[in-house]
Amino acid sequence: MNIYVIGMGPGDAAYLTPRALEAIQASDVIVGYGLYVELLGELVQGKECITTPMRQEIQRCEMARDKALAGHTVSVVCSGDAGIYGMAGLVHQVCEGHPELTIEVVPGITAACSGAAVLGAPLTHDFAVISLSDLLTPWEKIETRLDCAAQGDFCIALYNPSSKKRADYLKRACDILLRHQPETIACGIVRQIGREGQEYELCTLGELREKQVDMFTTVFIGNSQTRVIHNKLVTPRGYENK
Amino acid sequence: MNIYVIGMGPGDAAYLTPRALEAIQASDVIVGYGLYVELLGELVQGKECITTPMRQEIQRCEMARDKALAGHTVSVVCSGDAGIYGMAGLVHQVCEGHPELTIEVVPGITAACSGAAVLGAPLTHDFAVISLSDLLTPWEKIETRLDCAAQGDFCIALYNPSSKKRADYLKRACDILLRHQPETIACGIVRQIGREGQEYELCTLGELREKQVDMFTTVFIGNSQTRVIHNKLVTPRGYENK
Repeated sequence: MNIYVIGMGPGDAAYLTPRALEAIQASDVIVGYGLYVELLGELVQGKECITTPMRQEIQRCEMARDKALAGHTVSVVCSGDAGIYGMAGLVHQVCEGHPELTIEVVPGITAACSGAAVLGAPLTHDFAVISLSDLLTPWEKIETRLDCAAQGDFCIALYNPSSKKRADYLKRACDILLRHQPETIACGIVRQIGREGQEYELCTLGELREKQVDMFTTVFIGNSQTRVIHNKLVTPRGYENK
Repeated sequence: MNIYVIGMGPGDAAYLTPRALEAIQASDVIVGYGLYVELLGELVQGKECITTPMRQEIQRCEMARDKALAGHTVSVVCSGDAGIYGMAGLVHQVCEGHPELTIEVVPGITAACSGAAVLGAPLTHDFAVISLSDLLTPWEKIETRLDCAAQGDFCIALYNPSSKKRADYLKRACDILLRHQPETIACGIVRQIGREGQEYELCTLGELREKQVDMFTTVFIGNSQTRVIHNKLVTPRGYENK
């Protein structure tokens, strides 16, 4: 293998899979956003670590490609899953024209799964995953997707629900969902999933509209059947109707 | 902890997380569909294993609850993630009225992530997960969700795309998607993810309509930007447009 693109899961080593561990151990070069490489600690000792700041994703993947072309085995590490808003796509893109490079994507646990586990079981039925970041996606497209997801009564996991520059995006998203869903829809917010300071909170869609959340938060919106059981968020799959 | 609901990932031990392993080791009773418990092999030696056939999900969860009420530590094991079409919701439901029971959901790698990794990176942008099984969900609701997901130009992962009784469901699903998306949309099919005999195939949405798939298959439908790079399915996130 020339390049592994590795999903590290939520951050805690308890969710790093044996396959991810094996791939990191087999690599002599580790590429990633600084914080994620730091989380690996002793695992990357003695390896060449190439860290780049946030938003230098293309450069990061090109460096990984160039190291692989020079004969190294490279791991590109991502938080969560490697494919869901991770580097897997971009690594394939920058390696286009180099069919001699082999790429293995090692899946990891994405925040939709790890955050849902903290809340109980909000995604037990059909769901949509939507990022509210408009850095790479026109806001109009995000709006359309929110509208369609609410029309379809999907459970929804919202990634990147806010940042300093986008303080009102969650409110704007809720207003779109409220076109089709009632204010009473059960929702949940999880901060720092699988990390120190993990916390969660339940609320209604109407209340969610007024919440301030940060970039370390994943937001879950239930479907019309989702309810709260003993302070957990639960979407029935429908077994009870059989 | 009284009950763990554990996502085992795709099946291969390489994707079982340390936390899942720890929870199984801490349990004296293991409850699950026979095949999944078998996959655990030596891990469950010496433990009481309660296996039930497919479609006895309520009984399975009630047995887990009753064992927990009797003082045992119980692991309910699921393939993939515990929350995505898994038992996490139902365990919370059958434990309603027993606030003294603590439930931990241990997330696992769901087929959307593990299957996407096999195909390359089809879910690197917003996506929807939809099950085509109408055992628990009215077909009309599934149709609405397919229609909304296609309208929103979501990437889509289809779970349970077919079975003997539902041989034409994938074709019917494609016909709905084709109302909004062109026949040229790039798609992928993965069989036996993370298990012996794993295989994948790429095709267009028009070709997908004619495919026969089985219940061990997960189907991926790209969005309007998804393309094939060196025989892998890649959905750009948009870095190249910055």
